[in-house]
Amino acid sequence: MAKVGVKAIVISTGNELVLGQSVDTNTAWLSDELTRLGITVVEHITVGDELESIAESLSRAGKSADVILVSGGLGPTEDDLTRNALAKVLGAKLQLHERALAGIESFFAGRGWQMVETNRVQAMIPSGCDIIGNAIGTAPGITARIGKAAAFFMPGVPSEMKKMFSDSVRPGLEKLARENCDGIIVRRSLHTFGIGESRVALVLGDIMARGRNPLVNCTVSAGVISISINAHGENEAAANNLSEATEKQIREKLGEYIFGCNGESLAEAAGRELLRKKMTIAVAESCTGGLLGGELTRISGASEYFKCGWICYSNQSKIDKLDVNPKSMAKFGAVSEQVAGEMATGARWQAEVDIALSITGIAGPTGGTADKPTGLVYIGLANEKETTVKRNLFHGDRDFVRKLSVNTALSMLIKALA
Amino acid sequence: MAKVGVKAIVISTGNELVLGQSVDTNTAWLSDELTRLGITVVEHITVGDELESIAESLSRAGKSADVILVSGGLGPTEDDLTRNALAKVLGAKLQLHERALAGIESFFAGRGWQMVETNRVQAMIPSGCDIIGNAIGTAPGITARIGKAAAFFMPGVPSEMKKMFSDSVRPGLEKLARENCDGIIVRRSLHTFGIGESRVALVLGDIMARGRNPLVNCTVSAGVISISINAHGENEAAANNLSEATEKQIREKLGEYIFGCNGESLAEAAGRELLRKKMTIAVAESCTGGLLGGELTRISGASEYFKCGWICYSNQSKIDKLDVNPKSMAKFGAVSEQVAGEMATGARWQAEVDIALSITGIAGPTGGTADKPTGLVYIGLANEKETTVKRNLFHGDRDFVRKLSVNTALSMLIKALA
Repeated sequence: MAKVGVKAIVISTGNELVLGQSVDTNTAWLSDELTRLGITVVEHITVGDELESIAESLSRAGKSADVILVSGGLGPTEDDLTRNALAKVLGAKLQLHERALAGIESFFAGRGWQMVETNRVQAMIPSGCDIIGNAIGTAPGITARIGKAAAFFMPGVPSEMKKMFSDSVRPGLEKLARENCDGIIVRRSLHTFGIGESRVALVLGDIMARGRNPLVNCTVSAGVISISINAHGENEAAANNLSEATEKQIREKLGEYIFGCNGESLAEAAGRELLRKKMTIAVAESCTGGLLGGELTRISGASEYFKCGWICYSNQSKIDKLDVNPKSMAKFGAVSEQVAGEMATGARWQAEVDIALSITGIAGPTGGTADKPTGLVYIGLANEKETTVKRNLFHGDRDFVRKLSVNTALSMLIKALA
Repeated sequence: MAKVGVKAIVISTGNELVLGQSVDTNTAWLSDELTRLGITVVEHITVGDELESIAESLSRAGKSADVILVSGGLGPTEDDLTRNALAKVLGAKLQLHERALAGIESFFAGRGWQMVETNRVQAMIPSGCDIIGNAIGTAPGITARIGKAAAFFMPGVPSEMKKMFSDSVRPGLEKLARENCDGIIVRRSLHTFGIGESRVALVLGDIMARGRNPLVNCTVSAGVISISINAHGENEAAANNLSEATEKQIREKLGEYIFGCNGESLAEAAGRELLRKKMTIAVAESCTGGLLGGELTRISGASEYFKCGWICYSNQSKIDKLDVNPKSMAKFGAVSEQVAGEMATGARWQAEVDIALSITGIAGPTGGTADKPTGLVYIGLANEKETTVKRNLFHGDRDFVRKLSVNTALSMLIKALA
């Protein structure tokens, strides 16, 4: 007999959210975690720091969901009202929870600080509810039953929420999902670069059909299209089999564009290949101003292959530091195939590395001309064999043109290392 | 007599949101816009691409809100169901809207493309509803009345949504707010660096009290604490007066930490001061790998003051490119006050600029020792008078340590230019 499944509603609270001052990242993170457990997230709700609004959303969620995850409103200040809203919904009183107080006191003691009296309110918990320990902050979490739903209240600070969920909430939900969900969801993702989203949809066709298992969908970020494969199976092996079959189909159709999987970035894929080939790299950047170096060095251990770089923003610095020929500069201009090539070659010689990448372009919004419009970016790659330069015309604002330049350079690097 | 105010609910739709694959940035952006108009956002709702869920959330919102903004689900594929859900809620039929079709056809024609037949469904609009033109995409928006609420449906693609809202939705809402809201909200923000959030709250005290007008609250990002002042007044002048009085109080208490206002970043504040003083700058980066240069050059026109930079990741490159003394390197190590100072001095001389910044540290998670733990970062600043080095010990992951290093360097620069 089919199991009934587990439905979840994720609630976030905070004036900064409804006022539009902050983007809610907690909810997406929690939803991703729930989805991986096989739990279906049916709705997200966000309300401000208003007792009535929080209480109303909790009551409503308790009527339809099996699991409610709440983040925010457990702090020590007077706009932290989640405790009070929960008490109201449960018809319970807030009372001092001794173990919660002890936890807060030990948090302060562990840092050699005196507990501030205002933090005491964080130990006021609705009667009948239990607490969830907070290893890295003062706010204890709370567990409660609202209607038919198991509800978990966590702090709004992302690091505290994530640790509390991982340590104390996920294990129980995993058990709940195992008992009530028909199997689990295995999620894999494949990352492509150099092909548009509509083209991906066209090439994949029925593989992206609605209601299919595995369910396949795409998200886009700065030219990287991530194809997510959500396979539902009665156990991990079954889900994995389904996932692998779909992955194979996708790889057959889009293999040449796929550079990595499961969250791997272009820089990580490039780093992996540099390590494998024991090669070293340097960069020479103009319009990206250091972002390519910044991206390559986001990875711990990048010093194995990344040696150095030049940010040659001014024309003179391209000549002085990278031996760009002043005649090339005068004849073709700083944004040209010739200068991009000479920057890459110069950086490779100066840094004594195997490969050098260069970027020179017009990121905008000013500086474009009819001949050389905003978004025109030349990217060079010099290796032991040759120096190649790719001409790109990107459409978007300054940030987007710079990010796309970095990603295109990394993609060229990955291809050159393949 | 007091006006009744306008309440809004913001709805976003998409499986990628409830599955936790994407963070919803549209809702925060729309909420910020509504708040500035004086409209109160009471709730955010996110549902997946399910006809029933979308319809249910629309019906519910129509019972309590005056304004409903919806983003997502207007695309041409079969999981784009917002049109159908709206038709269901209204008890209306979808019918071909000639003006919508003409708009889609002209979008394709303008790019010299043939309209794909699948896009035709985007012109199917519930009878009785009107469309909102889309200047930069295929999906027309829709306006409808649901219960007592005026509802506006916009595409999920952020650039299309923002343009449609700004061009066609905001003007009407501005009028609605003027007629129904008691005055408007003026929002200003002050940005600080070098002081913690709890300290800000302590220093500001009652200024941050709940229910106060102006309402003052804080958000934190990589060490930057943004203090938002939301002043409610019957007209702009009244709200501005209130806002200015509170701003004055805050500046008296926190003036030394405030570097900018209204969204200005540390790099923008630094750039403003460099321009004012007609000074030039170069950078020498180790653990940040180019991020400082990347941040300084995010600003269009940065070439006026930013000349060049070195990413000296390897020890040898610090010696070769920046004239760091090999003896300092051997005696004190790459992460040391001495080397940070020599990097800054070297960069200043090599680049022939007025000021140079240097960063050398251990971003982690590996590479730390008892003497030099992860998070230890030396930041140097060389100007015409002297070279100063600041020792920092940052707590957090690699990304956070690098961001905080960049922000601390920019903050030192701003102070040096003051």
